[in-house]
Amino acid sequence: MNNKTEVTAAALAIGDELLSGRTRDKNIGHLAQTLTSVGINLREVRIVADEQDEIVAAVNALRAKFDYLFTSGGIGPTHDDITADAVSKAFGVECIYDDDAMELLAAHYKSREMEFTDARQRMARMPNGSTHIDNPVSKAPGFNKENVYVMAGVPKVFEAMLNNVVPTLQTGQKLLSRSVPCRHGEGVIGTPLGLIQKENPDISIGSYPRFGDDGSFSTEIIVRGLDQADVDKAALEIEQMLANLN
Amino acid sequence: MNNKTEVTAAALAIGDELLSGRTRDKNIGHLAQTLTSVGINLREVRIVADEQDEIVAAVNALRAKFDYLFTSGGIGPTHDDITADAVSKAFGVECIYDDDAMELLAAHYKSREMEFTDARQRMARMPNGSTHIDNPVSKAPGFNKENVYVMAGVPKVFEAMLNNVVPTLQTGQKLLSRSVPCRHGEGVIGTPLGLIQKENPDISIGSYPRFGDDGSFSTEIIVRGLDQADVDKAALEIEQMLANLN
Repeated sequence: MNNKTEVTAAALAIGDELLSGRTRDKNIGHLAQTLTSVGINLREVRIVADEQDEIVAAVNALRAKFDYLFTSGGIGPTHDDITADAVSKAFGVECIYDDDAMELLAAHYKSREMEFTDARQRMARMPNGSTHIDNPVSKAPGFNKENVYVMAGVPKVFEAMLNNVVPTLQTGQKLLSRSVPCRHGEGVIGTPLGLIQKENPDISIGSYPRFGDDGSFSTEIIVRGLDQADVDKAALEIEQMLANLN
Repeated sequence: MNNKTEVTAAALAIGDELLSGRTRDKNIGHLAQTLTSVGINLREVRIVADEQDEIVAAVNALRAKFDYLFTSGGIGPTHDDITADAVSKAFGVECIYDDDAMELLAAHYKSREMEFTDARQRMARMPNGSTHIDNPVSKAPGFNKENVYVMAGVPKVFEAMLNNVVPTLQTGQKLLSRSVPCRHGEGVIGTPLGLIQKENPDISIGSYPRFGDDGSFSTEIIVRGLDQADVDKAALEIEQMLANLN
């Protein structure tokens, strides 16, 4: 594919609960759809536990390799929320109580007549030199340091933060796609479909099998590319190939 | 935590469709729950695209770091199914048409009066020296090479293959867990909960916020550990701490 205007991204979901199976991640799928819709190419995802060394290693690997890194989880008020410390360590900067975040949270809890506990103050911590990501759901902000966007793990908060982030991102050419339904299994179409892929190097053809409960097979074929004419040409070739099979 | 009998694992999900948002992964959550239930500690998950270099790098990083690596996706009959090639390259061995798999598939398609196409023969390919993972759903086997288990991406097939694999795995001590419900938000309990964690280094306390649609906060506290007495002791301390808040 033509990568001249490609913008790439990675995601890092942080939390023991995702790895123990207690919680099924909902943020990765949402992030993937959102980024694709604006022309950012999500290239890799990792999930790691609430362990500082693991988070630091993943943050540094992914922020170096891709244009953007989006993280979810570990920015709450409890002892197992260590993402702010870990991201600070990854950047080699101090994890500070951010003045603006302290002010914002102090005012928030005062207005609700709640104590601004030590635990709540933890949510104002972020790497020195970060900017906030607003949190319209529960107030405590996420943060952005260079190309890394650190957001909450709770899906409602993650989505709200992402909504604030997306308009600020550099985006690339949108990936266009067309779906071609196919009543054959992959074993029937695999060889001719591979030939069409070979003849159309600027597009990417994905083939997704479906197994019916009755033992039947069918396939969804997805043609993806940056140029509408290329996508349409390949989709037409696939439709013709399928018509000849019937 | 006491790691004397810990058995660790990683998961690698392979497929452009997971990163574009077309498909939401269902295998990682299932694998996480299954491994936890038998005493294997899932420590890291990655999702990569259908690109050989990315798959090779992830396979080699994860198989070296953990006792087991489980992969999903990319073992079908079409051109975008490149997992067998990539895993072969990761091990530095040839990707061969496995004799037994060829025989199995030839007989299967013959019995269904279907042609054993080139595409279908692709599903018999695996790294030299692999053993099969039986596929009761759609026949084409997964494979196991050293500590790497390569399975299909279609959830029904992944789950069936995993069922065949699990009884063959070395397992560690099962992680025990107790849930302690808490009607307070994390900001109220964060500090005392952190103290209990500090006093109980052999257990791990996770704290998971819940935001109600009415703007209310509550928390689920999960105590995890390898020793029932340790888990019960910490859970009791948390319950007493919560009672004192009321």
